[in-house]
Amino acid sequence: MCPSLTDGASASTDRSEMVGIENTNVGRPVPTNGVNGHANGHTNGANGHSSSTQRRNPYAPRASEFLNNVANFKIIESTLREGEQFANAFFDTKTKIAIAKALDAFGVEYIELTSPAASEQSRADCEAICKLGLRCKILTHIRCHMDDARIAVETGVDGVDVVIGTSSFLREFSHGKDMTYITKTAIEVINFVKSKGIEVRFSTEDSFRSDLVDLLSIYQTVDKIGVNRVGIADTVGCANPRQVYELVRTLRGVVGCDIEIHLHNDTGMAIANAYTALEAGATHIDTSVLGIGERVGITPLGGLVACLYAADPEYVKSKYNLPMLREIENLVAEAVEVNVPFMNPITGYCAFTHKAGIHAKAILNNPSTYEILKPEDFGLTRYVAIGHRLTGWNAVKSRVEQLNLTLTDEQIKDVTAKIKELADVRTQSLDDVDTILRVYHSGIQSGELAVGQKEALDRLLREHREAATRERGETEQPQVVAAAA
Amino acid sequence: MCPSLTDGASASTDRSEMVGIENTNVGRPVPTNGVNGHANGHTNGANGHSSSTQRRNPYAPRASEFLNNVANFKIIESTLREGEQFANAFFDTKTKIAIAKALDAFGVEYIELTSPAASEQSRADCEAICKLGLRCKILTHIRCHMDDARIAVETGVDGVDVVIGTSSFLREFSHGKDMTYITKTAIEVINFVKSKGIEVRFSTEDSFRSDLVDLLSIYQTVDKIGVNRVGIADTVGCANPRQVYELVRTLRGVVGCDIEIHLHNDTGMAIANAYTALEAGATHIDTSVLGIGERVGITPLGGLVACLYAADPEYVKSKYNLPMLREIENLVAEAVEVNVPFMNPITGYCAFTHKAGIHAKAILNNPSTYEILKPEDFGLTRYVAIGHRLTGWNAVKSRVEQLNLTLTDEQIKDVTAKIKELADVRTQSLDDVDTILRVYHSGIQSGELAVGQKEALDRLLREHREAATRERGETEQPQVVAAAA
Repeated sequence: MCPSLTDGASASTDRSEMVGIENTNVGRPVPTNGVNGHANGHTNGANGHSSSTQRRNPYAPRASEFLNNVANFKIIESTLREGEQFANAFFDTKTKIAIAKALDAFGVEYIELTSPAASEQSRADCEAICKLGLRCKILTHIRCHMDDARIAVETGVDGVDVVIGTSSFLREFSHGKDMTYITKTAIEVINFVKSKGIEVRFSTEDSFRSDLVDLLSIYQTVDKIGVNRVGIADTVGCANPRQVYELVRTLRGVVGCDIEIHLHNDTGMAIANAYTALEAGATHIDTSVLGIGERVGITPLGGLVACLYAADPEYVKSKYNLPMLREIENLVAEAVEVNVPFMNPITGYCAFTHKAGIHAKAILNNPSTYEILKPEDFGLTRYVAIGHRLTGWNAVKSRVEQLNLTLTDEQIKDVTAKIKELADVRTQSLDDVDTILRVYHSGIQSGELAVGQKEALDRLLREHREAATRERGETEQPQVVAAAA
Repeated sequence: MCPSLTDGASASTDRSEMVGIENTNVGRPVPTNGVNGHANGHTNGANGHSSSTQRRNPYAPRASEFLNNVANFKIIESTLREGEQFANAFFDTKTKIAIAKALDAFGVEYIELTSPAASEQSRADCEAICKLGLRCKILTHIRCHMDDARIAVETGVDGVDVVIGTSSFLREFSHGKDMTYITKTAIEVINFVKSKGIEVRFSTEDSFRSDLVDLLSIYQTVDKIGVNRVGIADTVGCANPRQVYELVRTLRGVVGCDIEIHLHNDTGMAIANAYTALEAGATHIDTSVLGIGERVGITPLGGLVACLYAADPEYVKSKYNLPMLREIENLVAEAVEVNVPFMNPITGYCAFTHKAGIHAKAILNNPSTYEILKPEDFGLTRYVAIGHRLTGWNAVKSRVEQLNLTLTDEQIKDVTAKIKELADVRTQSLDDVDTILRVYHSGIQSGELAVGQKEALDRLLREHREAATRERGETEQPQVVAAAA
């Protein structure tokens, strides 16, 4: 179970407060990704651990699974296609370009854009983005139709996804009868696109509710024609991981080309499904920032990266600019006017917060996520902690001690009242709180301040702020360096 | 791929707007949960579909898996234990009681409370909740220590979870040496609790990073002593579904008692891990409302219920009061001052919204989630749709047509301006918009209103509001009946 509140001091009575803590890896061996020397065919994650063996990362891809692509995949970032279908997405050209550039800087291998055949604006935006000289490849998708193909190939995209109609078409599909038709049109479109030196992908919708034999027939056919990649989709967002594993694994044995997967999140399993698809041999995962898309969207970029990072941190760090994640999520969140969910992996308000009320030490001694998900790898070094209007003086006292300041309990209660007052206006970050504590402390030390002297404290804080502003030479901004969403 | 914006009309140019749609199951056969007549050992979800075969639900538990508990499980709702460890949870007794009652009414089989040994307040709250006469069983957890046990058994709880120290203890565990110690203390505590007629569970922390043999030894021992249930935990929230499956499946072969699992959500896989654990034979899943808990919390109640409902809707509907889900989430969200995430399964702002800009008909024709996740089963019948300040007259026109009102394009543009103006103040729900449209329409029809007559429209809206208020006999509240979070 979780580190419980039974370990030590009174907990829930005193409105347990949060205490900011530094990530201190207290001398534990860092888990490595070395292959488990005991290659015994068992596929569980445990390992023997005499002190001479390097500790294996139990979340790493299993060496026994040679098809496992958990550390060998590419991301097709679809914020500018799937994301456009999000209820509140109204991206103008400027915003699309900003998002495209940010995603490119983050390091995704592909970005996907709304079909240029959808509208004149889509076509213009597509061309504009293709002209940006991005490092990532640019993809779009079209209906299986020569008209769309002709438009798409002129935009400058690197790849085109040919989608086979709707799933109702698939459902009505009977053995053999329409295969000739599919093959004929698909061949024409695929060959045309290929003749332009452009990558071709072929996808179906609602793959998990499609007839398996029909599905495999289609994919086998287009694989023979020579597509670069086939795609499957959980369009209704209800597939479960082992089901995904099996379909991808089956498909893996049928086609030689790459396999892409597009997973909706209606039952909250899109990240896990993506992970499991990679285990089965998929090569490309569709994502969008914060998962935005139709309904509750698809596999979120940040969540996927977090879980793959847990499996192989070095691989993921080498591919993506992890510290940019928060910035990208904020960019998109602002554009679509949502809040980053409080429980978002890594970047959510709570991702690295702990409930105090217990000695900070006890928190450090508990099984720590930090051995796996290191906040500093994502550019996060501080945790939103105290500074809530319900903050109690105990939490403040912990922080005072962490800062090596000397204050009496009475003084701590006094400064806590000030923190709570400011927190009523806006939540104070840990740095805000540290500033208040240091100013208070030095005021006490110098004799300029005593308990209960509110005006004196206000003056000292104001002077400090003005001095800091002059140093920075910019308009006054509250100094906020926190992991708050 | 997803229903794309290529199907028909201009899409992304005109800032595609949302249109509220009713859930209309347009004559498609409802998927059933009947066992696939073709019991062929293949474990994929597809099926042949001649019109004479009833369509099998591809998300249902597989008949070939007799250990599969996806349709045979219990929920241990831990909002009042794990949830208390959420950064911003400060539940007073009144709130705890309200949450306990709500969870009981929802139908969870167990609720778990913070240890009564943690503080006097925890003990008092535990007793208070035990006295409520709830239908669900009440559990708490304690350290493996007689002092805690003595306190717990007097509170009136139905069950006690004995947690074996910390995982650092487990990690230092060497074969055989401390087993005697564990067994001795555990036997004493377990037998003591059992002698009081109280259920006993035995859990470990950080099970996925523990030595497998040690883990299985401990569980085997306590199983022999006679616990009701053993629990495993992904304390760091990084386990993946197939890894979970294997550990649970292995454990399933070792112990005869029930198996509970507690899954953290740091990499966003807690729901999927819970689902997969049930497939492997787990019997009990720990949840909390919105998943609140330490860091980003654990398996969320709503998300888990959504995914298990997709697998077996009748079973889940028979156990839980699904329409209460939204109310419970709002209750807890308010108590901990968070927003229900916009992409929350079922109850999130976006769960049933579609991006319009395309004919509403095209949306209805696309592969629809509604065949699987029916909003009305969760008491949701309307979708937040138009009413955003970027709403275009096209979306309003769609709604006018849906309401069978007759307005010219010029009149529609006129009323759209009013909606946008009101939406600048606050987002208008679909009912707000319907009201505006009906008032506008009847004003036009009666001759009291013409295009451009802003004051007349304001007056009509005001009169309508006052009449509605008098009818309801309450202080004026904007009438909002929407699925908005």
